[in-house]
Amino acid sequence: MATKIYITSALEHVEDEVKISGWLYNKTHKGKLIFLMIRDGTGIIQGVIFKNDIPEDIFEKCLHLPQESSLELTGKVVADKRAKGGAELQVKDVKIVQEAQEYPISPKEHGVDFLMDHRHLWLRSSKQHAILKIRHEIIKAARDYFDDLGFTLVDAPIFTPAACEGTTTLFETDYFDQKAYLTQSGQLYMEAGAMAFGKVYCFGPTFRAEKSKTRRHLTEFWMIEPEVAYCDLNQDMDLAEGMVEFIVRRVLKNRQQELEILERDVSLLEKIVRPFPRLHYNEAAKILQDAKADFVYGDDFGGGDETIISNKFDKPVMITHYPAQVKAFYMKADPEQPDHALCVDMLAPEGYGEIIGGGQREDDLDILLKKIKAHNLPEEAFKWYIDLRKYGSVPHAGFGMGIERTVAWICGLNHIRETIPFPRTIYRLYP
Amino acid sequence: MATKIYITSALEHVEDEVKISGWLYNKTHKGKLIFLMIRDGTGIIQGVIFKNDIPEDIFEKCLHLPQESSLELTGKVVADKRAKGGAELQVKDVKIVQEAQEYPISPKEHGVDFLMDHRHLWLRSSKQHAILKIRHEIIKAARDYFDDLGFTLVDAPIFTPAACEGTTTLFETDYFDQKAYLTQSGQLYMEAGAMAFGKVYCFGPTFRAEKSKTRRHLTEFWMIEPEVAYCDLNQDMDLAEGMVEFIVRRVLKNRQQELEILERDVSLLEKIVRPFPRLHYNEAAKILQDAKADFVYGDDFGGGDETIISNKFDKPVMITHYPAQVKAFYMKADPEQPDHALCVDMLAPEGYGEIIGGGQREDDLDILLKKIKAHNLPEEAFKWYIDLRKYGSVPHAGFGMGIERTVAWICGLNHIRETIPFPRTIYRLYP
Repeated sequence: MATKIYITSALEHVEDEVKISGWLYNKTHKGKLIFLMIRDGTGIIQGVIFKNDIPEDIFEKCLHLPQESSLELTGKVVADKRAKGGAELQVKDVKIVQEAQEYPISPKEHGVDFLMDHRHLWLRSSKQHAILKIRHEIIKAARDYFDDLGFTLVDAPIFTPAACEGTTTLFETDYFDQKAYLTQSGQLYMEAGAMAFGKVYCFGPTFRAEKSKTRRHLTEFWMIEPEVAYCDLNQDMDLAEGMVEFIVRRVLKNRQQELEILERDVSLLEKIVRPFPRLHYNEAAKILQDAKADFVYGDDFGGGDETIISNKFDKPVMITHYPAQVKAFYMKADPEQPDHALCVDMLAPEGYGEIIGGGQREDDLDILLKKIKAHNLPEEAFKWYIDLRKYGSVPHAGFGMGIERTVAWICGLNHIRETIPFPRTIYRLYP
Repeated sequence: MATKIYITSALEHVEDEVKISGWLYNKTHKGKLIFLMIRDGTGIIQGVIFKNDIPEDIFEKCLHLPQESSLELTGKVVADKRAKGGAELQVKDVKIVQEAQEYPISPKEHGVDFLMDHRHLWLRSSKQHAILKIRHEIIKAARDYFDDLGFTLVDAPIFTPAACEGTTTLFETDYFDQKAYLTQSGQLYMEAGAMAFGKVYCFGPTFRAEKSKTRRHLTEFWMIEPEVAYCDLNQDMDLAEGMVEFIVRRVLKNRQQELEILERDVSLLEKIVRPFPRLHYNEAAKILQDAKADFVYGDDFGGGDETIISNKFDKPVMITHYPAQVKAFYMKADPEQPDHALCVDMLAPEGYGEIIGGGQREDDLDILLKKIKAHNLPEEAFKWYIDLRKYGSVPHAGFGMGIERTVAWICGLNHIRETIPFPRTIYRLYP
């Protein structure tokens, strides 16, 4: 009896009789031959049907079978260097599982809204496949990086009683008799984790009710957030650049085929080797002033500013010591210039913008209390967070890396919406 | 200069001069000696201070140092078989980073509410450490299991336009000009993923506004949900039992120390070897009737029923073919007895209840449409889901495993609230 195999392992079954279950990706015919391109999620293989080998009614059906019909092919695998994947299938038997209705996505150009409305089907195309395979690789690499360094996974809660990054972009929900907010970052909880486990990370979805419609924003996006006790800004940056290098190398090693489908210039990714440049905010500001950018010293950088700076380098660049006033309350002030924070943003090359934000956290109880007051935050909701400075406070630092922006950069995508299986934006909640 | 090390690697540094940064876990003294138990998140080591070795004021300070003060010890590692971890530290220098305030959690008994209010500190205790290390191991093992089998990670969205498991337990949020609901399961999206990638899984938080206050319920809990195209109920059960066996073996192999801290009877876990018993609903019902349980044939099983059934076995038991009426609309009916569904619940041993629910999905377009109507579900919101039956529908199956219940079982915990770093229940949204 024919062995059931996945297409990805076809080359291990040359000359074997196998069964492949999949969907019709494309077809052509020529006289007594039909060529069916079959996909099964692990790869694509060509099945060649010779008219005399199968019943006539099945041959007729195959001639007119719509794209994405599901079918099982039985036949012999033969090596063929010209074929995609190095093998094709000489079909002996065809079982049509379901004849599809007329498939809405054709090779012709479709508008973005149309494709997004059909995201559940669009996922079947080879470009989307390649992107999500690389996404998986990036996520696995990031987790492996921290696991191998002895970090403990500490999942942060999604429901939180208070805001962390400002209240204007919060999603709120009724929580029985209270209100709850969807987390914008697991960081504060990771600080508690670091005091318990030394080195921790969380990895989960985070939420921002961003009204902006830029190609860099989603309302729901995934972040990996490590936090380390007894760690300063420089050690934090070592950790961040080590992680990014590790991720890029893994993708280059394991996802060559996908990068090729995306026509990614891998020579640019091969340059992502430590050390990455580290720039003081003042140095970055100087670059913008020299470029006559529309930028005021003391402000945060806009998307255009980030592109001007990152274009100066062929590696990710880490900008440190932003003015404290443009950063969150929990950032530790630089003791040598207290109006600057011990923080870091990492900008991806090629204009992909910020992929990492982090830094050293305020570990002094009195200063933290003052900052919570100055930012008009509800002290009651932060009681537990303040506790961390009462019971064995230590210097500590961490960062968050946005997965979707990292996927966009590594895949070389123009827009963030294709970096996640089911994107959510201001106008997009379906499918 | 002394090398900075983590306690977990102390045995690799015997006779070396090292620096350990951590927190004071416990202390005793005897004449000219102080014994400091230091934890750094990776382990605990005893530091021995001899009065003549350090300045007198530091010695005095150490004598009265409160629990959880942060400090850095420099000294020589010496092997000592009697010591925890096999080594202790002969302290030559002490740097007190912060003298803690009086620590609220002491070895005496505390009430559950008190400990939950101090969850951010309670995480530092050895029992909570052990549980969360095992949680990490379980999550990593589950991901590795599917990654090794060639599954693609397809993250399901958290914001959804419609309910999947019934509307009474939904969390709702304003989503710009619409309403969005927090996901209760990624399954429907995984079905789209399986048609694109063949074998997929998602792993993320899911939400149920459960009013119940049982020891088995959280409002926010994590699930891993695989879904496979061209898969029937039996193959689905093979996958589920393979995963559970794999996870238990990994924990037994890598987390012996943690299981010991929890005083877990590992002989019970060593019995978790495939195959697991598979019971038709009718057979399970017979067990309950024989036990004179308060159970009506045709109903779903309650927590007490599950305990009676699972106590008959020393492995997880898989119950199949529940009456279709107690299961969700997407379950495929058994062609041989259409009032029963091709579904499976896996009950953990020792009365830990359901850890897995899954089965084969309805793949026929007309039947699915009828079921959506019969369940009064909004067809419009399920348009994309219905599409999956129009374009290459195939037999497919999957399941979801609740992480927290699995952690509770493997750790042998009485209550689910300790299985997640920051539990969320009807009355608990803090810290």
